Amino acid sequence: MKLLPCVALFGLCLAHSAHAQPPSLPDPTSVRLDRLQLMQGFPPAADRRVTAGSYMRQYPQARWAFHHMRELLPSRSIPRGAGPASPLPAGADRSAEIEALRFNGASGELSFAEYLKNTYTDGVIVLLEGKVVYQRYFGMPEEQPHIMWSMTKSMIGLIATQLIHEGKLDAEALVTDYLPELADSGWKGATVQQVLNMTADVSYSEVYADAESDVVKYAMAAGMSPVPADYPGARSLYDYLPSIPGKGNHGREFQYRTVHTEVLGWILRRVTGQDSAQMIGERIWSPLGTEHEAYMLLDPAGTEWAGAGMNASLRDLARFGEMLRNDGAFNGRQIVAPQVLASIREGADRELFKASGRIGQDGYSYRNQFWISHNRDGAFELLGVHGQMIHVNPAAGLVLVRLSSHPVAASAAHFPTTRPAMAALAELLRTKR
Amino acid sequence: MKLLPCVALFGLCLAHSAHAQPPSLPDPTSVRLDRLQLMQGFPPAADRRVTAGSYMRQYPQARWAFHHMRELLPSRSIPRGAGPASPLPAGADRSAEIEALRFNGASGELSFAEYLKNTYTDGVIVLLEGKVVYQRYFGMPEEQPHIMWSMTKSMIGLIATQLIHEGKLDAEALVTDYLPELADSGWKGATVQQVLNMTADVSYSEVYADAESDVVKYAMAAGMSPVPADYPGARSLYDYLPSIPGKGNHGREFQYRTVHTEVLGWILRRVTGQDSAQMIGERIWSPLGTEHEAYMLLDPAGTEWAGAGMNASLRDLARFGEMLRNDGAFNGRQIVAPQVLASIREGADRELFKASGRIGQDGYSYRNQFWISHNRDGAFELLGVHGQMIHVNPAAGLVLVRLSSHPVAASAAHFPTTRPAMAALAELLRTKR
Repeated sequence: MKLLPCVALFGLCLAHSAHAQPPSLPDPTSVRLDRLQLMQGFPPAADRRVTAGSYMRQYPQARWAFHHMRELLPSRSIPRGAGPASPLPAGADRSAEIEALRFNGASGELSFAEYLKNTYTDGVIVLLEGKVVYQRYFGMPEEQPHIMWSMTKSMIGLIATQLIHEGKLDAEALVTDYLPELADSGWKGATVQQVLNMTADVSYSEVYADAESDVVKYAMAAGMSPVPADYPGARSLYDYLPSIPGKGNHGREFQYRTVHTEVLGWILRRVTGQDSAQMIGERIWSPLGTEHEAYMLLDPAGTEWAGAGMNASLRDLARFGEMLRNDGAFNGRQIVAPQVLASIREGADRELFKASGRIGQDGYSYRNQFWISHNRDGAFELLGVHGQMIHVNPAAGLVLVRLSSHPVAASAAHFPTTRPAMAALAELLRTKR
Repeated sequence: MKLLPCVALFGLCLAHSAHAQPPSLPDPTSVRLDRLQLMQGFPPAADRRVTAGSYMRQYPQARWAFHHMRELLPSRSIPRGAGPASPLPAGADRSAEIEALRFNGASGELSFAEYLKNTYTDGVIVLLEGKVVYQRYFGMPEEQPHIMWSMTKSMIGLIATQLIHEGKLDAEALVTDYLPELADSGWKGATVQQVLNMTADVSYSEVYADAESDVVKYAMAAGMSPVPADYPGARSLYDYLPSIPGKGNHGREFQYRTVHTEVLGWILRRVTGQDSAQMIGERIWSPLGTEHEAYMLLDPAGTEWAGAGMNASLRDLARFGEMLRNDGAFNGRQIVAPQVLASIREGADRELFKASGRIGQDGYSYRNQFWISHNRDGAFELLGVHGQMIHVNPAAGLVLVRLSSHPVAASAAHFPTTRPAMAALAELLRTKR
């Protein structure tokens, strides 16, 4: 199996390979943001422009686009409230140790600094017991919101789990109990819990390298790039989702499909009467005392991409990750119930997960839109498709947030090296506190 | 002369009439935001949707769209800094008196409350000597940024005047000294000051009701609505501006043309090396201690609409207006130099202004992107095309900010009544302090 090269349609790639750095990828040094000089000047030079029509097709435009998404597409503000930002205290600076840390990746030994470079990191922060011990930006301004891609799913999953805890959402109810619009779709007969765990069965392929893949229809419906005038498919998420068929074999296996989270987002809106931005703002973002702007990207009908569209700054995601590590509490405030985190960390059926053949994630399960490692430290993760990650290791007291713009649209492109990287980092910090 | 009805292309209208409320306008009561229920529900009802393609064509969609512009179009955040919001102290509540105030408008006597309703006001605030004596929202949430339309011009003009004061911009230099790209355009031979005062002469018509008018080409270049695939014209402001011709009769008369401000915005970016959002944020919005989000709308190439694209909340615009009243100072801080306000308030040549035949603005002049009344109180204004207004009356200690979504795209639609309304308000507050 090999990593397929990027294709023209969305510039996204599928990876089914253990080769994390195939030779066709651009040299990370050559696509450093400061060297690229994208969108500098008035107007920018012709070969340095980034537009809604080009950012997904022409790597390395993603390196700029991923922290300027609202400048390309419509968006909705996530309210943070009027209060001051909560403290994010600094600990002893461990930068030198962390960057020098050597470990064995998928293609041999490397340093943590090399790992960050090789995974096209835009910004990274490490918290140990709630204190910042490492923080670095690679050309991205600190206050800038960066697209989370599929880490957005976990935000929606967290709120869903909290609503279940509050008795406002029934995990065992049918999807169609909440969304009669889906009565003739593949979600017929599926439960909310099956959507949460992505074991509901819909006929939908998420193969980024295939121009015929359903994920392209999803991207068109979401308006991720301008849609050609003669495009015959759905032009909004609410139009697209009911058209997805299925065979009804729910609960048999885990298959990662972004449209499940779009359905989940729709259910939550119907249950709460709030749009996703408002919901995230009131329940999570304001209570956290976030520092910078955050927003959701919208489809052409004004609906948030629940499966991909949240944008937030590195430090605010660190606050969020620290709250996850602390069983839902942050800065002296219980933001989601401890039972919510306990339920998520339990994980799901690892046998159902195996079927998906995820590279580098043996032994994992996927529960309520979180990746659960089931390792001895109880580590769990949020993952975005171009290398974005929040890694929470409760036993080591560790939270790492990475924002990135990896050219390959698949966790498989870095995960075989990411996993030992996280283990080595935990070991370093655990043994030398 | 009559008010032309709205036309299909952008739903904007030209007004050359003293009839402020022709019978063809929708009853303001029937288009109250709470009654319209636009974009409510998931999904909204088919006849309650607002999109980038419809908001300008189908009034009353503007009533929702004008305070949700970033949900329709790309935008760039105006940074407000990390500090707390500055105080905007409350004074004695004068709501009852103000709403009951009766005065003679263009079509007979009416109350101030009726005036606000008849001008499709979304939100209004009145400050007397820096204290809020009246504040009301008509269905728009307080924290919501509302499009300022041409009030944006005054923000750009203010910064330009400050840069002139700092010696960084030469008012008497040629436009082409800063922008050689315009050497073959209508701006050839025009000075910066002529652009500031809109006496530079370019062959450009701003007739909203005429589908052949140049303002439509401007709207297309700015990306105000989706541009048809077969549209042959410019698709960005930087592509459009150099194509505008002229006869070189600069300095002969005032003619209101939004493209002058786009040129001015371009000059300021070149002089400062900052985009408009960053410039406004650093020089004005952060020092003011603003409270809510603010942003600039962008063309498809990522360039701000310097002539129309700023969005801000009512209370933040009140802070801005109060700073203008106080010769550039607010909350104990000098934000622009007193000389800057003195220069603006001087006004420009009223004879040159006359030629434009502006309805209801006899005796006015236009200087550095501000409307100067030359009345005995020294009142001056910022005006937006759908009734948005900041009215500053230094002698009466009065600042009024109105955000609105008037169906007629012309100040002439309300100005013959607005002018006596402002005079009556000043009289009320002056005599009963």
